[in-house]
Amino acid sequence: MAKILRINTSTRQLKYEDLPEKYSALGGRGLTSQIVFDEVPATCDPLGPLNKLVIAPGLLSGTNAPSSGRLSVGGKSPLTGGIKEANAGGITSQKLASLGIKAIVLEGRPEGSDWYGVKITADGAEFFNANDLAGKGTYEVTAICRERYGTKVGVITIGPAGEMQLLAAGVTNNDGDGNSSRYAGRGGLGAVMGSKRVKVIVVDSQGTFDAPVKDPEKFKAAARKFAKILADNPTTGIGLPNYGTNVLMNIINEAGTLPTRNFRLGRFDKAGEVSGEKLAEVAVARGGKATHACHPGCVMRCSNVYPMPDGKVCAPIEYETAWAFGPNLEIGDLDTVARLNYICNDVGLDTIETGCTLGVLMEAGIIPFGDGQAAIAALEEVGKGTALGRVIGSGSAVAGKVYGVTRVPAVKGQGIPAYDPRSCKGNGVTYATSPMGADHTAGYAVTANILNVGGKVDPLLPDGQADLSRNLQIATAAVDSTGLCLFVAFAVLDNPEALPAIVDMINAQYGLALTTDDVAGLGQQILKVEREFNRKAGFTSADDRLPEFFHTEELPPHNTRFDVKDEDLDSVFNF
Amino acid sequence: MAKILRINTSTRQLKYEDLPEKYSALGGRGLTSQIVFDEVPATCDPLGPLNKLVIAPGLLSGTNAPSSGRLSVGGKSPLTGGIKEANAGGITSQKLASLGIKAIVLEGRPEGSDWYGVKITADGAEFFNANDLAGKGTYEVTAICRERYGTKVGVITIGPAGEMQLLAAGVTNNDGDGNSSRYAGRGGLGAVMGSKRVKVIVVDSQGTFDAPVKDPEKFKAAARKFAKILADNPTTGIGLPNYGTNVLMNIINEAGTLPTRNFRLGRFDKAGEVSGEKLAEVAVARGGKATHACHPGCVMRCSNVYPMPDGKVCAPIEYETAWAFGPNLEIGDLDTVARLNYICNDVGLDTIETGCTLGVLMEAGIIPFGDGQAAIAALEEVGKGTALGRVIGSGSAVAGKVYGVTRVPAVKGQGIPAYDPRSCKGNGVTYATSPMGADHTAGYAVTANILNVGGKVDPLLPDGQADLSRNLQIATAAVDSTGLCLFVAFAVLDNPEALPAIVDMINAQYGLALTTDDVAGLGQQILKVEREFNRKAGFTSADDRLPEFFHTEELPPHNTRFDVKDEDLDSVFNF
Repeated sequence: MAKILRINTSTRQLKYEDLPEKYSALGGRGLTSQIVFDEVPATCDPLGPLNKLVIAPGLLSGTNAPSSGRLSVGGKSPLTGGIKEANAGGITSQKLASLGIKAIVLEGRPEGSDWYGVKITADGAEFFNANDLAGKGTYEVTAICRERYGTKVGVITIGPAGEMQLLAAGVTNNDGDGNSSRYAGRGGLGAVMGSKRVKVIVVDSQGTFDAPVKDPEKFKAAARKFAKILADNPTTGIGLPNYGTNVLMNIINEAGTLPTRNFRLGRFDKAGEVSGEKLAEVAVARGGKATHACHPGCVMRCSNVYPMPDGKVCAPIEYETAWAFGPNLEIGDLDTVARLNYICNDVGLDTIETGCTLGVLMEAGIIPFGDGQAAIAALEEVGKGTALGRVIGSGSAVAGKVYGVTRVPAVKGQGIPAYDPRSCKGNGVTYATSPMGADHTAGYAVTANILNVGGKVDPLLPDGQADLSRNLQIATAAVDSTGLCLFVAFAVLDNPEALPAIVDMINAQYGLALTTDDVAGLGQQILKVEREFNRKAGFTSADDRLPEFFHTEELPPHNTRFDVKDEDLDSVFNF
Repeated sequence: MAKILRINTSTRQLKYEDLPEKYSALGGRGLTSQIVFDEVPATCDPLGPLNKLVIAPGLLSGTNAPSSGRLSVGGKSPLTGGIKEANAGGITSQKLASLGIKAIVLEGRPEGSDWYGVKITADGAEFFNANDLAGKGTYEVTAICRERYGTKVGVITIGPAGEMQLLAAGVTNNDGDGNSSRYAGRGGLGAVMGSKRVKVIVVDSQGTFDAPVKDPEKFKAAARKFAKILADNPTTGIGLPNYGTNVLMNIINEAGTLPTRNFRLGRFDKAGEVSGEKLAEVAVARGGKATHACHPGCVMRCSNVYPMPDGKVCAPIEYETAWAFGPNLEIGDLDTVARLNYICNDVGLDTIETGCTLGVLMEAGIIPFGDGQAAIAALEEVGKGTALGRVIGSGSAVAGKVYGVTRVPAVKGQGIPAYDPRSCKGNGVTYATSPMGADHTAGYAVTANILNVGGKVDPLLPDGQADLSRNLQIATAAVDSTGLCLFVAFAVLDNPEALPAIVDMINAQYGLALTTDDVAGLGQQILKVEREFNRKAGFTSADDRLPEFFHTEELPPHNTRFDVKDEDLDSVFNF
């Protein structure tokens, strides 16, 4: 029987509850958002005792469905003040599914200064004192836990940033190599975990098998079909497996929508120096890997392993991170980008938010644009807990307030990622309207705007962008519930057989009879729940807007402004 | 003819416009809020070019109506994100009125790094370069301007905090002695002035006379009657003139609603050491003044002049400031309070917000509670522009985010002043619901809750508090439009002749035929305009709430929580 593991951090009681019937067809984001909606008062303090941190594998996690190992983390975001789901790869999602755990719910908030860990095995769950792990970076914590509990455990942890309850702190878990860098990074959920004084959750699934499947034959057939669709698709079968996500660097630069110098320019003359092609070349030359699976069973293997000059390894450097620390800061040096990425991973910060924040500090003149060493020195302040370090860890919107900067690329307090909304206007609509705050993964209109996948909508014109974003946001909410990597969407948008194959897998696993329409309905339902939470938390259409400068400053080379009408933005949730 | 002086800081053009007919019966807060509502897009960036800073004398300013020299400053607040009016004494309000200027409107935002001043005389207004004044404290700037332009000028200025666009920066002007400490402190309007790169506005009314009065005889009779009412009232005629506002320290402490140790306790054992009685004793012994008029023509003279051990003078130490740096930080030493107050005045920060912020830093353990020297050292960081200094200048809500503190006493981002809402629940309603954010002056329920003025409502019970706050907020909005000091409300609440006398003065001055009902109507209209601005800016009832800990933590000695129902809070604007 599927369970919820409820962990009360105030009383230090743990209990397994049967999954309520109404949650039976939910997983991943669908489940985290529904539990947050049902149990967390929308106006509560995100770092107070009334907020909860919900960790959930996807519907298909723990099976051998290809690329189904995403782990969702949800709660009320201290960064945005709204509902949040962030998801990551790593090995933990599948382990939780194998243990029959549909969700972990961390609740309450303890008194005192002790830090705790939670160990979960097939025999049950228990607290342990984690004071010896406090203050340590995620790499060391993960290494210690693997030494203590075996190299097959999944380690969900936060860095010092999460302990300090910094608003840009993420929750991470490790990949199969023990690398602790699979981040549910966005929205500050690491600070929520820190507020509960839980440093680490160790998941040991020894003695368990794959998640149960009601109709194994039907499942196997659908999974095989889906794997072939992924393999045959040019993006999921060729592009991503060869160069990873950072293959986008040159593409987005060419499209003129690569935010450069804190969103002043749309192209960066040194983009090639931090591109996926360059990364693959350097990584391989140094004995690293140009491609790598973030979780077992992934067929796209879009991640990478980048050896740094000091012998340490940064794994991975994703496109959005390469952008955040590269073009955004006018830094055209991959080793500097890797170092900034590594520090973020270790101290426990979201790389996108941190890149945006460093951009704001450069805008303020605190750090010179392009000065990688100064950026590294500033980022190292976070772990020291200095005032500057804390400001950096508090995200771009707070840094903008502290330094009197109005050119802050953020929506609902969350930094805008690697695609400028003035020349990829579909993404602009997603940034403005997603309940998650600015988030490229919430409705990735780069597909039809730039990549000509799933149709073609001119990225420079406002027309059709609201419809595009709406459809993508709905589809994404559904995909985020399955445990499937969002990149399967490339195949789903291109091949009409893909979505039925996914639905067949879910039906076979749970003994359901869902249709493809039901999946769209699920996506709509999730968005409605999230939107309603935000409404109760105090959000209005005034929060569904981009910062002023995107409307008043033209972005070279296309010299366009963001001009999607307010009424179009307000139409996105008309369903 | 009454004028608006419109100052475009982008183009450096100044022009006088005739006051539109629809503004003819507006002044002070009524006029600043209406202009902000009419001209500032509610969702604009408060520090961007679309915000405006509006400075307006009251309706009765410039006449010899007693205590009528308050100066209103308004705009969209960078601290709260909503509409803001803050008012102050000083000599400038009457000078502007004498010059026939009903409002100064600063608009636009210049490029470049130059600082500007504006000089206003009877002959017109002009810009001057103020780079030589940049970086200087308000005391020095005022002294320089008085030396250059004569000791009778009014000097409206910001300190380095305003130049840095820190969210807690205020706008100040000087009293008759040249002391630059009459602050329109709350809501960060100094940052708005800083964003326009206007360091100082010098107002020279030489060659002008009192503001014109249509029926001088009727005016004189009403003014004389009103002066006698103030003189005969025990608070405005005896209490305030003898000990000033800080006479409240012992009273509020005795009532058990003196927020102590960042709102953990309702009484402070060293309250007497920072009380008005003690202040009067020390000030007089050192050659200072126990009472002092903040503007010419004030009959209450509730201010003071406190000589510090180093020979400098802090003038004044108001009750709320003495609380912010005294009980709130567990500091029981008047010289330390004076030093903190002096630094705030000079660097240009709101004392209430800064006291709340230091309380949050003490809560975080960055500064020990009760450590005056550490508090002084921290506050001195502001002028240096360090990261810590900037965080301190950014106010309590931002500091809470940066330091992961959930016990932050703030509503709509603005710090809660010197009366705990759990044992002065009428003030709690005002803090929660005022369009201004937490503000004791917006609806001072201490009257009926603690002082037994204008009725009696039990401060410990929720009953009747919403009605009390509503009536006070309406009356306050009207008083804030007249230029009269809010303290006249003590007389108005006690003596039915007082309000008709005020109305008679306004009617005599402007040739109007307003009734006392019209004055209540004016208050309602102002609140509706302010509330509508905030609604368009994205505020909802979720913003009309106190922080969580006031609902969950009991306050000694009465051991009460804030328990006014949400529906009662939401009823405050039912008119």
